[in-house]
Amino acid sequence: MTGGAPVTITLYELAGADPERRFSPFCWRIRLALEHKGLAFEGRPWRFTEKDAIAFAGSETVPVLVDGGRAVAESSLIAAHLEEAYPDRPSLFGGPAARALTRVLVHWTDGVLHPALAPLLLAEIHAILAPQDRDYFRRSRETRFGKALEAVCPDREAQLRSLRRTLSPVRATLRQQPFLGGAEPLYADFAVMGAFLWARGVSALPLLDADDPVEGWRQRMLARLQPASRALAAF
Amino acid sequence: MTGGAPVTITLYELAGADPERRFSPFCWRIRLALEHKGLAFEGRPWRFTEKDAIAFAGSETVPVLVDGGRAVAESSLIAAHLEEAYPDRPSLFGGPAARALTRVLVHWTDGVLHPALAPLLLAEIHAILAPQDRDYFRRSRETRFGKALEAVCPDREAQLRSLRRTLSPVRATLRQQPFLGGAEPLYADFAVMGAFLWARGVSALPLLDADDPVEGWRQRMLARLQPASRALAAF
Repeated sequence: MTGGAPVTITLYELAGADPERRFSPFCWRIRLALEHKGLAFEGRPWRFTEKDAIAFAGSETVPVLVDGGRAVAESSLIAAHLEEAYPDRPSLFGGPAARALTRVLVHWTDGVLHPALAPLLLAEIHAILAPQDRDYFRRSRETRFGKALEAVCPDREAQLRSLRRTLSPVRATLRQQPFLGGAEPLYADFAVMGAFLWARGVSALPLLDADDPVEGWRQRMLARLQPASRALAAF
Repeated sequence: MTGGAPVTITLYELAGADPERRFSPFCWRIRLALEHKGLAFEGRPWRFTEKDAIAFAGSETVPVLVDGGRAVAESSLIAAHLEEAYPDRPSLFGGPAARALTRVLVHWTDGVLHPALAPLLLAEIHAILAPQDRDYFRRSRETRFGKALEAVCPDREAQLRSLRRTLSPVRATLRQQPFLGGAEPLYADFAVMGAFLWARGVSALPLLDADDPVEGWRQRMLARLQPASRALAAF
């Protein structure tokens, strides 16, 4: 929220019992995208069961972005909107070829990284939710995973090893360059960092070894967060 | 090999007993890169045990590229050389951000896709090698996998399912766009396609369902091969 400029952008973000606790990986990637473009915005806490509050956007999930009079739901569509609506601000993608390749990394994040991370977090997410969200969360996630929340991760050490192995292409790349996008972070970084901010919002479990190149990158990404965002991720 | 232009580029490529059978995924990505840049070149067959023939390049493996007086080994270094030496030809990467992101996809290909594919191919690779290469191949691969070649893939159907699952981020992307690089293929496509040309060079096993978006992309990539290359991949 840059001083002086009128705030016309609102981002609905998933929050826990504590409204300052923001932990959706998809909302985080949009927050990082807004910061990258230097756009002032208000992040409005939203709970899983507040479907009515975002019905105007034709969506049952966040992120929902309201930009002036326009509502956009779903992180990839919001990123596309920001790139098109603010072409004079720093690009989220770095050109058409990079934008095409970013899609692979976003799909990898959604379909490979998130499933490796989710089992480690589910029980802790349940514990930090607003009371009215807990039944919804348990029911929807137990349906998705086909088992009780408490049974999704029978061996945390094995799951942690699997997560670290999953990160190998990212790790190998970060041995060669500071960010996935190269010298500076781009939307691919925001997608992957969203997963780590999700984890940071709900759990104190250290996911990475201190000497892991991915941990070095995670620290660089944290250091770039605006102060307001840093507070929301510091649980 | 464009008519008229003097051929000054030589690519040493892994070959089987039949010198026309080229099956190294790393050599294929360079062949595709050379075609992308429209450069005339001679592809010279090379066998695993012909270490002396490429010692001049300081390498024990192919691809080795000789461009005029300069020798370059290792596919990523060769791609970098081609991009720098021929900046007026079509870019392999599509800009600095895309080049940075390409690294993630190359590491994913090397570290995730190849290991999912290799078990399906190892025994068949052994069978198509020149006789003098067979002991070397068996010994080096059995050391790498810690078991007999014939024991690396005890369940082909399960391995095939694993390979198809591994391709999910690529599949999801190819539902949205014709190539990983976007409207046209780029080096990320060449890296992934190298894996499929490796398979095609050694095995008749269909890896993908006919209606898989990855199969549609594979066919588009095959259709773009120069005729000389198509013959080398048609086993």
